[in-house]
Amino acid sequence: MTKTVISPWEVEGDIDYKKLIKQFGTTPISDFINNKLKDCHPLLRRGIYFSHRDFDKWLKAHSEGKKVSVITGRGPSEKMHIGHLVPFLVAKSLQDNFGCDVYIPISDDEKFFVKKNLSFEEALKYSEDNILDLIALGFDPKKTFIFQDFVYTDIYKYAARIAKRITYSTAKAAFGLTPGKNIGWSFYPAMQAAHILFPQFHSRKHISVVPVAIDQDPFIRLTRDIATHKDFNLEKPAALHAQFVPSLHGGSKMSSSGEGLIFLSDDAKTVKKKINKYAFSGGQATIEEHRKKGGNTKVDIPFQYLKMLFEPSDEKLEEIKQEYESGKMLTGELKAILIEKINDFLKDHQKNKIEAKKNLDKFILKN
Amino acid sequence: MTKTVISPWEVEGDIDYKKLIKQFGTTPISDFINNKLKDCHPLLRRGIYFSHRDFDKWLKAHSEGKKVSVITGRGPSEKMHIGHLVPFLVAKSLQDNFGCDVYIPISDDEKFFVKKNLSFEEALKYSEDNILDLIALGFDPKKTFIFQDFVYTDIYKYAARIAKRITYSTAKAAFGLTPGKNIGWSFYPAMQAAHILFPQFHSRKHISVVPVAIDQDPFIRLTRDIATHKDFNLEKPAALHAQFVPSLHGGSKMSSSGEGLIFLSDDAKTVKKKINKYAFSGGQATIEEHRKKGGNTKVDIPFQYLKMLFEPSDEKLEEIKQEYESGKMLTGELKAILIEKINDFLKDHQKNKIEAKKNLDKFILKN
Repeated sequence: MTKTVISPWEVEGDIDYKKLIKQFGTTPISDFINNKLKDCHPLLRRGIYFSHRDFDKWLKAHSEGKKVSVITGRGPSEKMHIGHLVPFLVAKSLQDNFGCDVYIPISDDEKFFVKKNLSFEEALKYSEDNILDLIALGFDPKKTFIFQDFVYTDIYKYAARIAKRITYSTAKAAFGLTPGKNIGWSFYPAMQAAHILFPQFHSRKHISVVPVAIDQDPFIRLTRDIATHKDFNLEKPAALHAQFVPSLHGGSKMSSSGEGLIFLSDDAKTVKKKINKYAFSGGQATIEEHRKKGGNTKVDIPFQYLKMLFEPSDEKLEEIKQEYESGKMLTGELKAILIEKINDFLKDHQKNKIEAKKNLDKFILKN
Repeated sequence: MTKTVISPWEVEGDIDYKKLIKQFGTTPISDFINNKLKDCHPLLRRGIYFSHRDFDKWLKAHSEGKKVSVITGRGPSEKMHIGHLVPFLVAKSLQDNFGCDVYIPISDDEKFFVKKNLSFEEALKYSEDNILDLIALGFDPKKTFIFQDFVYTDIYKYAARIAKRITYSTAKAAFGLTPGKNIGWSFYPAMQAAHILFPQFHSRKHISVVPVAIDQDPFIRLTRDIATHKDFNLEKPAALHAQFVPSLHGGSKMSSSGEGLIFLSDDAKTVKKKINKYAFSGGQATIEEHRKKGGNTKVDIPFQYLKMLFEPSDEKLEEIKQEYESGKMLTGELKAILIEKINDFLKDHQKNKIEAKKNLDKFILKN
């Protein structure tokens, strides 16, 4: 990989993502929406969420004083890394800015069905651990509902009602089922739709928005169809579609395996090592060349991480951009900024996670 | 239908049922078992349960002081008729004679998935009604556990663990799934296996017996395979296989629709009318002929109902048999005996059902 490679999630991405909007039949984020999100998390105001369904309706409903909510889930099959946080940071930001409820389904059943070697006990263990990571983000306990399929088993009642309206053929098409896959997997599409509609089952009919990666849109569409079935008579859920979060290596989607992951449990030394060793740089090959040509922020992972997640100040980000592109700031200096930001975040996060244990009961829905 | 027709559940049945034992690879009821069941309900001691799997082991375990139990379920999609009682009368008799626990899953989810026009609310309504009918049979509240899938939703946790071990192909073969059927239906085989293994999940590893019609044996076999999987390490459930209960018309299986059904809610006048009008008789065409040739008890529905369900005394049954076969007893007289027996039973049952409401909580498992 050389500096001339343009990563798919940035320059090429600009093109691909437009294509994806066309392909999936979704709507680009409008100025109206951008304006409403101008005080939100960088993920929402810097173009990472680039497409939507009915999010304008969500905003309008909110401005009319109607109830709105956010729903975003977690499939717990491992300890969480930074990439996993993306939809939850969005949910928290929407809660902070619009005062709305946030629903977080924990699909331990899905992971159990899909991961061959994941035991039932492990699925429960990861749920417990991941839930603490989510609470540590600072959600409002009065407005946040975390429900785990193997704990809040009443979700089965809702999933069953939906399951009656999804044929195996339909589920097969949307979820790529094959006859050799287990029947838990066959049923899961109903459970997922139940998660997405749960805010309305739990409260009342209203628009709930789902922040998802664009490739998840077919499931949203399936659920939107179900919502308006006469059995349910609910609002179609809205969606906010994200680009893929790059891995440290610069790949287009932060994968769950490999070395390019920063776990929420990593210590400062580990983070420093990982960023320095693995974070794909848009800098030049030598200091001399870098001083002359400057770095490419479009492909530089440390810069992208600052932009997406770790530098909330637009002014500071712009300053870093100019210094890096002009060659004034070196790759090592840029990485040092990110390392410090991440370690500050993780230090707080790890402390908050210990605190979270005390508040668990305030967040967890029980049968 | 004339008197020369031999119904499949009796004479021809003697042959068919032997064939079925061979076909399903089950074991005929032995003298050892018959001897152990000699004080049980007529259904158990008069050959209606004609085949089994491991029921000898169940009896041996009980005689060694080990825990044993019975599990038999109800799919609530309508009000109950007399034919529905068969496995529950067996369960109660085993409880009375062996002091064992009885588990009764109420598969409202199955009926909801399978019956196109059954609403979720109706499924719950029939569950409530059917459960009262079951409690009215006189089960011991300390030893009887009724659990309804849409109420005791924790069953989903067990079903999920089993679902992981059943592929869609396997479920399809055993349950005749097609791609046009809904995904609740696809999942249900796991739920059913969870019901059958539930006594062991709820208590501890032990032999539980399932009274079923012989055509249900493939599901038992599937569950026996799952029981010994290393994830579960449970005892294989035993089975007791029944012949099909004849409808009043003399058909081989008491169907859920049509006029030949005596509902547990029928009043005395209705019962009298139904038996007199619909109960297929083994009597002769005229009184003169009947006095001369006698009736055929093998095909006579009133006699079969007395034998299976309503005449506990072997002496009295033998007396009736001799009088009817000799022509001394007429069809109308035989029917009158049955009508009185059924109406006595239903009168008590309907009273017990009202009482049952008070005791509901003692029987129902909750999350």
